[in-house]
Amino acid sequence: MNAEHHAAGRPPQLALLVQGEDRRGLLRDMTAAIAAHDGDIWSVEILERGDRSRVFWEIDAVEDEKALEAALLEIDGVDSVQRMPTMYEVYGKRIIVVGGGAQVGQVAIGAVGEADRHNIRGEKISVDTIPIVGEENLANAVRAVARLPRAAAVVLAGSLMGGEVAAAVDEVREAGVLVVSLNMAGSVPDHADLVVTDPVQAGVMTVMAVASTASLDVSRIQNRRY
Amino acid sequence: MNAEHHAAGRPPQLALLVQGEDRRGLLRDMTAAIAAHDGDIWSVEILERGDRSRVFWEIDAVEDEKALEAALLEIDGVDSVQRMPTMYEVYGKRIIVVGGGAQVGQVAIGAVGEADRHNIRGEKISVDTIPIVGEENLANAVRAVARLPRAAAVVLAGSLMGGEVAAAVDEVREAGVLVVSLNMAGSVPDHADLVVTDPVQAGVMTVMAVASTASLDVSRIQNRRY
Repeated sequence: MNAEHHAAGRPPQLALLVQGEDRRGLLRDMTAAIAAHDGDIWSVEILERGDRSRVFWEIDAVEDEKALEAALLEIDGVDSVQRMPTMYEVYGKRIIVVGGGAQVGQVAIGAVGEADRHNIRGEKISVDTIPIVGEENLANAVRAVARLPRAAAVVLAGSLMGGEVAAAVDEVREAGVLVVSLNMAGSVPDHADLVVTDPVQAGVMTVMAVASTASLDVSRIQNRRY
Repeated sequence: MNAEHHAAGRPPQLALLVQGEDRRGLLRDMTAAIAAHDGDIWSVEILERGDRSRVFWEIDAVEDEKALEAALLEIDGVDSVQRMPTMYEVYGKRIIVVGGGAQVGQVAIGAVGEADRHNIRGEKISVDTIPIVGEENLANAVRAVARLPRAAAVVLAGSLMGGEVAAAVDEVREAGVLVVSLNMAGSVPDHADLVVTDPVQAGVMTVMAVASTASLDVSRIQNRRY
């Protein structure tokens, strides 16, 4: 499940930055070493290739971390294996705000202000935004939330959204993503988990719904309009 | 180079969602198929594993895309290979805003408003934020920008930052990330590419510096204070 890996509220066990001389087959050798140590790969980001190779791995369920690090270091070309904080530890759960610039900015004000209050108490919540226009762009942005690491919720911040965007809302809810919509024209509010009229309040409530330090139970207010 | 893959302003050639029955060695087999078709893997996100497997690949430099798709589909267990828009096409370049809730919110207002103007003209720029406190958290967030896909700039939005945060600023600048700082206490402004006093203006100028539809040449205003 996407929800289990990305939105479940826990980091992977291990993040490693592996550096060395690049060569053909290097990534495959690293994948094999991780598999040989029972590692579940959650994500791989190739930061550099060409002469040098820098690969950032997020891995779970490794039995012997030291043995995996040693095995990676033994791979031909690899000259350094560093532990890093996981992206979950650094940036935490993500709330994605999509829509018109005016509304996205106001939702961000609410969400950032509320995330600040939770992050000060040890939580990590980040608020990611993209102001865009057009049904296809919006539907793509909503659908892609299900493929974004650590995304827990999406806020639809516009004045008119329907059609493909509503279909995309159904899909990402199915994938376990919470969907909050501003009170707007079009069919999107009918498809959301929660509809909020004021954009600042929408940002605050979305963070409360996602934060483990808050006590807003979305299932109790589902399909309500505020 | 990080800059080449993530901040250079172009998407990878291909994004594929590969689904099927999960099994040991599946990821390794897919990696081998991509390598056999000369594909440069940029990133891999494992969205689901267990019974079913859903893996999102971003790949570059594939000579014969159809042949690669067919080869992936021939792998034991794989039952679907779908083309997706790349994350770059959906969310574009990223500006990361890090610091105190009050300032981060105001920088976001400026950056989202300005990104809206560019995105309407066909650009894709997203504005990602995290309000956090503490030197270690801040330094981790700044350093991790160099490992984030598509991150082009980071804005330090606080009242006092120095020490490890300034060291982290030097590191990410080295990696090709533009660093903008609010005018604040501590040594961070001395290490940034650009210092801006007003947070809304800081957000706007950062977007202008990153947008290809704008004509702000950062090299001409480097180390200035506004």
